[in-house]
Amino acid sequence: MKSSSRSAVDPFIVMDVMEAARAAEAAGRHIVHMEVGQPGTPAPAAARAALAREMERGALGYTVALGLPALRARIARLYRDWYGIDLDPARVVVTSGASGAFILAFTALFDAGQRVGLGLPGYPSYRQILSALSLQAVGFETRAEARYQPQPQDLPGDLAGLILASPGNPAGTMLDKAELDALIGAAQAQGTAVISDEIYHGIDYDRRAVSALEVTDDVIVVNSFSKYFSMTGWRVGWMVVPDHMVRTVERLAQNLFICPPHASQVAALAAMDAVPECEANLKVYAENRRLMLDRLPGAGLPRIAPPDGAFYVYADVSEITQDSRALARRILDEAGVALTPGLDFDPGRGHTTLRLSYAAATADIALGLDRLREFFAKL
Amino acid sequence: MKSSSRSAVDPFIVMDVMEAARAAEAAGRHIVHMEVGQPGTPAPAAARAALAREMERGALGYTVALGLPALRARIARLYRDWYGIDLDPARVVVTSGASGAFILAFTALFDAGQRVGLGLPGYPSYRQILSALSLQAVGFETRAEARYQPQPQDLPGDLAGLILASPGNPAGTMLDKAELDALIGAAQAQGTAVISDEIYHGIDYDRRAVSALEVTDDVIVVNSFSKYFSMTGWRVGWMVVPDHMVRTVERLAQNLFICPPHASQVAALAAMDAVPECEANLKVYAENRRLMLDRLPGAGLPRIAPPDGAFYVYADVSEITQDSRALARRILDEAGVALTPGLDFDPGRGHTTLRLSYAAATADIALGLDRLREFFAKL
Repeated sequence: MKSSSRSAVDPFIVMDVMEAARAAEAAGRHIVHMEVGQPGTPAPAAARAALAREMERGALGYTVALGLPALRARIARLYRDWYGIDLDPARVVVTSGASGAFILAFTALFDAGQRVGLGLPGYPSYRQILSALSLQAVGFETRAEARYQPQPQDLPGDLAGLILASPGNPAGTMLDKAELDALIGAAQAQGTAVISDEIYHGIDYDRRAVSALEVTDDVIVVNSFSKYFSMTGWRVGWMVVPDHMVRTVERLAQNLFICPPHASQVAALAAMDAVPECEANLKVYAENRRLMLDRLPGAGLPRIAPPDGAFYVYADVSEITQDSRALARRILDEAGVALTPGLDFDPGRGHTTLRLSYAAATADIALGLDRLREFFAKL
Repeated sequence: MKSSSRSAVDPFIVMDVMEAARAAEAAGRHIVHMEVGQPGTPAPAAARAALAREMERGALGYTVALGLPALRARIARLYRDWYGIDLDPARVVVTSGASGAFILAFTALFDAGQRVGLGLPGYPSYRQILSALSLQAVGFETRAEARYQPQPQDLPGDLAGLILASPGNPAGTMLDKAELDALIGAAQAQGTAVISDEIYHGIDYDRRAVSALEVTDDVIVVNSFSKYFSMTGWRVGWMVVPDHMVRTVERLAQNLFICPPHASQVAALAAMDAVPECEANLKVYAENRRLMLDRLPGAGLPRIAPPDGAFYVYADVSEITQDSRALARRILDEAGVALTPGLDFDPGRGHTTLRLSYAAATADIALGLDRLREFFAKL
């Protein structure tokens, strides 16, 4: 038995970093983790309590494919609270993480061979999921001056779809309402379907993130309980789809997933009312971000686009190296800080960038910044 | 935004039955559920206890994509216990249910447009997942005299892949070692990759189910914690892949799923030692099966292939009706028993078949059989 062509997806370079960090720790070294893209905090206490209770009450068998009705209704309410949008719960689809949402969105919208655009740098799995589904990922470069977000004039032609992400990963920058409007307008004028990845919403700082649903209903929005609600390992997310696509997505979901994990749905529903705990986590990220923006310039990494949201900083290290992978390896070996070479996010230009995550505890971030300063001072 | 062609998958007819049953119950009627394909029991107590404990200990963030190493090792041990096979844990991939395993297997093995064979009647989602992944599902009819299992001479030519299921759904019949050997041999002689769905293993009666791994290592085996371990809603399963495909599947899994639900993996690991509870569930199915085989012939449904495993009986009702959907609806309305018309499993011949599940409690099954006897007596 032979592997298919479409399964030849790129490896994650960050995995090598994580493995090297693990090996260093196993050898007794202390490592500061600035490579991981997830909160160090568990699911909110109320979420865990709700599941502990529910496990002893019900069988937690399959739910309906679109998710627990109470959870769909609660998610719809979030759109009122966060964006002032009146959203019909029937348009909310609970998914097996944002990952499950992408599989559903891409298969629902695109046929084999079609072209789907995405800005670089960007979340690497967009490209790999598209390839695995026999779609053509069309990466196009965004500019540092545009804070690594696409602009209408960047869009390649002949796209069946376009993926937007605000706040984006790895740069954490956001599109404001006017920018989102212009991009969605330009895409729709070409008949291009827009998928808006809003997984970092809720984790924003100076201003709130704008949802694509504030611009149009003719869009698929993807979100998740992983980040703001601190539930990465639970694999539960959601999408909002146009009315006329609900039945299509439901049938796909019935067959491709049967249902999202029932236990995770129970926990997620309770997590949505754990606002104080989520806001406390956010305060930590805000303080970490402040430290990063304060100290990175003095720590040898001055060329950054200040992030509006998420918990990443993307640093241009082109004046230091043309080999971000080797630099990241040296920083790990010599300074004990794990971070991610930009190559996962931008195969073309990522050899001169690094991504630093500040999702860890503040003391770790401060320690990491100290170590980076020392490292670059010696360089 | 328009839906893709490949998203035009068939609806599940059983969903209409379930909705009609739900509506009848909402209107105050008592319904016996013989339509559902899942145990009514919860996850084993030890599984729930382990998760309750672990939730308070760790953050339950992402696991590595292939699953918790301890769980992979424990699954490998199951192959020694059940089949006497010495299996390298490195070949075990924990997945988001058998559903996730199919997505991984199909994308790992097949490119868009390739043909994948499957016997009819069979689990409907095989066909729908294949279509959603731009693959061509090639259904071929199996014969009642062959107990609805494929035989080598049934195989259509030019198949990139072949899906086998033993015990199968909806008939619950098994392939013995010689039959499995012959089928896999015939497929491999044509260069056809074999995927063996073993999700009902552990739920067998007179003889134990044979794993395709007892025949060859050059096969993908799919299994799950849903059925024997009574964990449907937890969405955790596994696959065993040939050595040389592990890296390919790992990369796909990293991108398509990130990881299977962490909480479900914790519960699954503990479930594997809850043998007495699983065996107690099995005893209930065995008693239910005995009742079904005893009484169905006298209750108007004599034409059945006695199931070797799983918890289904597939009944030929061609002497009663040419419209199984209407018959199922009448049985629900007049007798208060929900069951599944065969059309989901066999679009061609399913208009003359019904599937009856006996996963419910024994008292329910006995009541359902009484109601069926009365219904058919009046017919």
